[in-house]
Parts: sequence; structure tokens; C-alpha cells
Amino acid sequence: MIELAFIGIGTGNPDHVTLSAIRALNDADVVLLPRKGEAKADLVDLRRMLCERLLEPGRSAKVVEFDLPTRRDSADYLMAVEEWHTAIATVWGEMADTYLPDGGRAALMIWGDPSLYDSSLRIAERLSERGKTLEVRVIPGITSIQVLTAEHRIPLNALSEPVLITTGRRLRERGWPVEVPNVAVMLDSGSAFDTLSPKGIYIWWGAYLGMDKQCLIKGWLSEVGSHITARRAKLREENGWIMDVYLLAKP
Amino acid sequence: MIELAFIGIGTGNPDHVTLSAIRALNDADVVLLPRKGEAKADLVDLRRMLCERLLEPGRSAKVVEFDLPTRRDSADYLMAVEEWHTAIATVWGEMADTYLPDGGRAALMIWGDPSLYDSSLRIAERLSERGKTLEVRVIPGITSIQVLTAEHRIPLNALSEPVLITTGRRLRERGWPVEVPNVAVMLDSGSAFDTLSPKGIYIWWGAYLGMDKQCLIKGWLSEVGSHITARRAKLREENGWIMDVYLLAKP
Repeated sequence: MIELAFIGIGTGNPDHVTLSAIRALNDADVVLLPRKGEAKADLVDLRRMLCERLLEPGRSAKVVEFDLPTRRDSADYLMAVEEWHTAIATVWGEMADTYLPDGGRAALMIWGDPSLYDSSLRIAERLSERGKTLEVRVIPGITSIQVLTAEHRIPLNALSEPVLITTGRRLRERGWPVEVPNVAVMLDSGSAFDTLSPKGIYIWWGAYLGMDKQCLIKGWLSEVGSHITARRAKLREENGWIMDVYLLAKP
Repeated sequence: MIELAFIGIGTGNPDHVTLSAIRALNDADVVLLPRKGEAKADLVDLRRMLCERLLEPGRSAKVVEFDLPTRRDSADYLMAVEEWHTAIATVWGEMADTYLPDGGRAALMIWGDPSLYDSSLRIAERLSERGKTLEVRVIPGITSIQVLTAEHRIPLNALSEPVLITTGRRLRERGWPVEVPNVAVMLDSGSAFDTLSPKGIYIWWGAYLGMDKQCLIKGWLSEVGSHITARRAKLREENGWIMDVYLLAKP
């Protein structure tokens, strides 16, 4: 039997890991560390650094790096995601066969929290369907939205009001959601807020949240929207990658 | 000047605190510990336990307990909340005058995350308006929703789909939100899901999340809804209080 622990590690601030995450990492026999290509080397470095910092000397955890399959660009987004998850499940299965032939504990460090816009749980299901006996554990971690609100020192929701967490893609396709004053947007490949009529909308934006190069901008969308778009493009070029999220509110 | 740190402490599992939270607690001159009456003594005990466990010997942090004002029952909910926040701001101000007459660092441990259905940031604004020079810091913490999804080993969102975080009150008043497949419900004083037509709705419910007495139930709402209602009533009677959240999905 393989115990697979998905460990939320927060978003770049190593002090955002929990005591549970540290314990789960140290309990592992193998820590699987995905490489995501040159451009995102920073993110692998961060995981390596966390391993070095958090794994106690004398513990058995072996850190193993592997190349994460990449997602094919396709007009059919969901189909491309399907294929991608299948490819990742295959790699995880091979790693398990290689490093835990007699079973044991594998750990994967998950950016943010394993429950929010992360597919590890779905990929683990695929692995189970192929006959691997898996026991999955989930260790929650601080999400980028939480770091965004913490760093801007704002609540996520207006008093007694709901908040929608959605994607850039969805905001672009559907516009402002019905009857919701606050909208947190993740996975935006670039300025989906441009598709909204900016009147009366306030934005709190953040990139590289929790990291040294964290960047925050806030203001009325009509005033700062284009500034955010330009800043984002520049940062992306400078760093080779960017991760950003934002909260929109109609106060 | 007073630095006021709102420290997210998770929801009852002491291992869900982050390294940042531990550091912020140890950096404080005064840790303010609210007492919430007999029924919720467990929650004060948990904070006391965290202080004992996390405050390093030889650090200066002084732990001071105070009685949290209670919210008046009123037909006008928002007005009652207004009055309540004003009363809390007054108490915080008095504590600051007493324990930090020359300024310094105060810390408050916040259940879950200070940004989600918590009013500390709004109360701090009131204190600023009364002329206190405040520098607010926010340390994110694991929310009950994150523990719910981690313990049930489920994603919060369906693939590429949005999720709405809302309150029991709101669900009761407005019904199922438009165009959202997943809805996380907090602050439900009891079975707001009863007001929905249960067909095709799946529920993952959890009470006392992260604590030893954690209780989880999942299933089709039509099959487990009344079971959850009965279990909740029983647990509330046994323990004198209950905190629970749930995720609803229309798969």
C-alpha cells in the first residue's frame, strides 16, 4: 500500500508552512519534486529549499526530482487537461514502482492548498483506478488568496456577504457573477478584468505573493487596471514566469 | 504606536499553525485572549494551550484575558453587528491603554483566517478612527473550509469551475446561487440546506474540524440531510457549542 500525502506549502513564503506540513514531509519515505521547465525553475528551487530547511537530518525521506509532463495547447481545454492528468498519473505510477516497490509513504508538495485549483486529488483517483492501492492524505496550506488579503490587510468578504472564487477564463466568458459583491480571481493568464465595465469596481492585485519579489497594487479598476496589465507584462518578462491573483469588489 | 497582529491559528488542530504565526505570537508584548462565556470555554482553552505550547520561555509576551462583549439579539442583524463591533473596539482600546500605554505590539489569535467571516479588521478600523495610531499586520491561517476539504480528501472546486463561499443566512434567503456548481457554507446556525430542493445535491459536512471530536458526514443531501441535522443537535447539546461548515455540490 502506498500512502500519498499532498502537502500544502503556501505560496512562496517558507514561514507559511504549518507544523502539520513539516511533520508530513518528515514522515515520508520519498518526496516527489516536480520539475516544470527552465522558466519556472524558481518554483522548483523553492521546494528544494523547503526540503533542505524542513527535513530533519537522520530522517529517511529521499528527495526525488521528476519532469512534470506539460499540458498540450488545444482549443479543447478540458480534453487537453484530461490528457495531461493521465500523463501525470503515469509518471507518478512509475515513480511509485521505482522508489516504493514494497509500498510506503510518498509526499508531494502542493503550491497553496491541495483543494483549490489543484488537480492532484483527481490525478490520484486515476492512479487508484489503475489498480494502485492508495491511501491519500491532504495537509491544508495557505493559498495565494489568503496571502493577498493578508498583505493588503483586507477581508475577503464584505460583512455577511458571499465571495466567489473563480478563474480568469470564467470571468472573461461570463462577466461579473450575479448577486456577488466580491470576486477572487485565480489562474488568469492576463487581465481578464479588462472585459468588465470598470465603473464602481475596486481591485486588490498581487503577484509572487509571499516571495521576496512580491508586488501589490490596489485601486479603482478604472484608474489602476492598465497599470496592472503593464506591470504584469514587465514582471513576467523579467522573471520568465508570473503567478498573480486579485480580488474585485463592488462596494 | 501600536502594532496589532491578527494571527490566524487554524480551527482547533494546534499543528495547523504556521511558522509565521508562531513567530508573530512570540514577537508580541501582549497577547489578548478573549473569553466568550462558559459555553465556548473550549475555544478559550485552545488558545491558552496554543500560548503555552508556542510561546518560548524567556520571551516577553504577556497573556491577558478579557471578556468579549456579546452581540445583542435583534431583528436588525447589521445594526446589532455594528453595536457589537463598537463595543469590542472600546474594549481593545482600553486594553491598549492599560497594557501598552507607551505603544508596543499586541497580538490576537483569530480562529481560522482573519480575512474570512471575521470582523477583526473592521474593528481595528474603528479603533483607528478614534485616534489610535495602529499598524495592522495579518498572518493568514488555515480555515475550517480547508480542513473540511482536506479531511474529506476532496477539491473545493470542480475542474475549472468557480466556488461560492457564503453564509447559512444567505443560503436560506436566496437559495442556490446562479451558475455556481459548488457552494461552501459557513456560519450556519442550523441546516440552511433544508431550504433547498435536495435533488442532485451532494454534501460534505464537518463539525469541530481539526479537533479531537471532529465529526464528518457526506452523502446525497436527500439521504443524509436529516441525519446531519439530528447529529448536529445532539453534538451541540453534548458540547454546549458547535462550529460546523459544509460544501454542497451539484455534480
